[in-house]
Amino acid sequence: MLVELKNNPFSGRGIVMGIINDNKYSHRIVTKTAKLSGLDGSVLKNTEVVVQQTRHKFLFGCAQFDAIPYVNNEFKGEEKERAEQRFDKFIDLFNYATLPFYWAFYESVKGQPMIKETKKAAEWLVSNGLLLKGHTLCWHTITAPWLLDMTNEEILMAQMKRINRDVSEFEGLIDIWDAINEVVIMPVFDKYDNGITRICKELGRIKLVSKVFSEAKKANPSATLLINDFNTSESYAILLEGLIEAGVPIDAIGIQSHMHQGYWGVEKTLEVLERFSRFNLPLHFTENTLVSGQLIPPEIEDLNDYQVKEWPSTVAGEDRQAREVISHYKTLLANPKVESITWWDFADGAWLGAPSGFITVDNRVKPAYDELHKLIKGEWWLKPTKYMTNENGEITISGFFGDYEVSCQGKRIGFTFDSSNDTVKLKI
Amino acid sequence: MLVELKNNPFSGRGIVMGIINDNKYSHRIVTKTAKLSGLDGSVLKNTEVVVQQTRHKFLFGCAQFDAIPYVNNEFKGEEKERAEQRFDKFIDLFNYATLPFYWAFYESVKGQPMIKETKKAAEWLVSNGLLLKGHTLCWHTITAPWLLDMTNEEILMAQMKRINRDVSEFEGLIDIWDAINEVVIMPVFDKYDNGITRICKELGRIKLVSKVFSEAKKANPSATLLINDFNTSESYAILLEGLIEAGVPIDAIGIQSHMHQGYWGVEKTLEVLERFSRFNLPLHFTENTLVSGQLIPPEIEDLNDYQVKEWPSTVAGEDRQAREVISHYKTLLANPKVESITWWDFADGAWLGAPSGFITVDNRVKPAYDELHKLIKGEWWLKPTKYMTNENGEITISGFFGDYEVSCQGKRIGFTFDSSNDTVKLKI
Repeated sequence: MLVELKNNPFSGRGIVMGIINDNKYSHRIVTKTAKLSGLDGSVLKNTEVVVQQTRHKFLFGCAQFDAIPYVNNEFKGEEKERAEQRFDKFIDLFNYATLPFYWAFYESVKGQPMIKETKKAAEWLVSNGLLLKGHTLCWHTITAPWLLDMTNEEILMAQMKRINRDVSEFEGLIDIWDAINEVVIMPVFDKYDNGITRICKELGRIKLVSKVFSEAKKANPSATLLINDFNTSESYAILLEGLIEAGVPIDAIGIQSHMHQGYWGVEKTLEVLERFSRFNLPLHFTENTLVSGQLIPPEIEDLNDYQVKEWPSTVAGEDRQAREVISHYKTLLANPKVESITWWDFADGAWLGAPSGFITVDNRVKPAYDELHKLIKGEWWLKPTKYMTNENGEITISGFFGDYEVSCQGKRIGFTFDSSNDTVKLKI
Repeated sequence: MLVELKNNPFSGRGIVMGIINDNKYSHRIVTKTAKLSGLDGSVLKNTEVVVQQTRHKFLFGCAQFDAIPYVNNEFKGEEKERAEQRFDKFIDLFNYATLPFYWAFYESVKGQPMIKETKKAAEWLVSNGLLLKGHTLCWHTITAPWLLDMTNEEILMAQMKRINRDVSEFEGLIDIWDAINEVVIMPVFDKYDNGITRICKELGRIKLVSKVFSEAKKANPSATLLINDFNTSESYAILLEGLIEAGVPIDAIGIQSHMHQGYWGVEKTLEVLERFSRFNLPLHFTENTLVSGQLIPPEIEDLNDYQVKEWPSTVAGEDRQAREVISHYKTLLANPKVESITWWDFADGAWLGAPSGFITVDNRVKPAYDELHKLIKGEWWLKPTKYMTNENGEITISGFFGDYEVSCQGKRIGFTFDSSNDTVKLKI
């Protein structure tokens, strides 16, 4: 796809041509004509304007659990400062964040959910331009321990009530949910007894998922609901087939890729993409991890079993992480079904204490962050770029789907780049 | 379960008490009172009668592919004699046989199915007291090669037509079918291109299985239809859940256990039984293999890849096979959901040339055959046994579900042992 930008002598050719010459991402890029006129309708011909991208349509996300203690004043002094530095870096790179709703923490005492605290964090993140996802409404791990005292019927009722309550409470703030997590293993999970495995065993996977989705849709009919799993084998594909045949309204397929044991590589990633692309549903890569230190040995089956006192980030590890991050994001972006990639976690030392962040524990920015920034806000982004309108007041712009802004003579107006080829008419 | 057989001074206490003392099989055993009278209604009191079992309700089966060339006079001279010796042994042990319907062989030339030859074999086997199963109506392996020249729509039509034709043709002779085989891998099977993988990929597993079952039911509404797989993992369980939720009328779950790489052992067998018992459907162990020679190395993933010139049966291997056969059959019989066990194959040198038979290539009967015979027609069987009726003409008998015969004063009458406890009234 090569578009001759003949009317744009001042365009940032390097950037734009870079994007549109790369067929890999053609499904994410559109070339559009914008016709500019003044508020009085006069054609804005032969005029210099500046266009810039303000937002990606693609969801570049990251787990964001610190926001809750931060906005609820749990961080003090230096800790608070470090958190603020991290937020600045976070907001500069991402347009999407995953907020925790782990039932064991969110409602550790039955009837006392952390609605207020979580809502405060959600509002703050939204005010910083982030779209939010809630993680997760139903999961056998980190679930409410008090479910164990209930009958299966009561557990199911509590689970439905919880879904209805939280999805309703956060409507407008959080309209994307990991509705249910890790269903492939859910009924046969045998590490410890828990309420969710009990009801999944009794109802079966399909009936439980169906109930979870239907309750969440009832609470917020316009919510985007994901099923999410770390199992990327044919088992998950077979489960999805059963769910789809049963009419469960899955809006997107969530795929975890915690690569603590080493980068999948392009070949495995393409295999996974092929396996799940056939459902013709959006794919969300919900939990992406590449560590910048020691890899977890291959013989460890459950990552939670890897317990180390120290897990440092190393120079060689950070170099490897950066290279793998580039490869991973490029491979995923090249598949038209992928609509979201969420990094897990932003800073080192979170889940498993792993050096999985883009930032070290002492807030040093790693090469992976810089390299990803060069893609998301560089190669795949239209920085402020001068254009000259033609005799008809038109400019032709190419860019990734998303939000853009044109400014001219001290005035500015926003517009959206989607897949249509219609001319954008802008009065400025 | 201990029943005092006080009225039966002549009963074969050893045998009957052996059975009924063993709780493991209590779900397969019933204790019943039979009341005997003469044809004129007179009570047959204090009379000696002989009772014997004539058939197991449980399906003890085996693959039986030789019957087709045999009844169609393809065996001559010594080969024919050896086949006859094998049939004698076969019929003495089994009440159930699996006949081949591999599409590639059954209809190698489109429009010329081996109906006549196969029907002749089926009739002969039925006349020898065997219940029959057809294997298989839809499978990506050994399928008709001429499907490759068709569009997917045409392949599906040919598949449906084939099902309808063969299930209708054999109604009354064959009313049990492995309707579809190895669906877990079917759409992702990538060893070679074939028509069935093509349509399974396009339709999805659930839609294809649904169509296959519905066509077979249409052709023979009272047929017992199985789905059958070698994949005994949670993937198969998830597929079954999807099929059941989609309303596919599965009559029994078929589980293959080709143990060429070594006996599963009791623990794995119990795991598999637990995994599939939860569907509350009959379980048929459709393809059971334990070799009496070298095991296939664990690194071989597809058994078909193990190609050896000679694969001899050894003394140590035959001893091991016999012990494992006993353990395998006992483990399976102990589970109430299991209704059938089919051995694969009867004689050595069939699939893969493996020493998987109960009989060697030169017709020597292996210890496994004798040991299994001691169970099926010994421990689990009521041999001719004398009983004495009481004052009311009653005898009390315990035995495995199945068909029995009582004889008295040169006359004989058959009756069936099922799970009911009703008194059997017999006029003799």
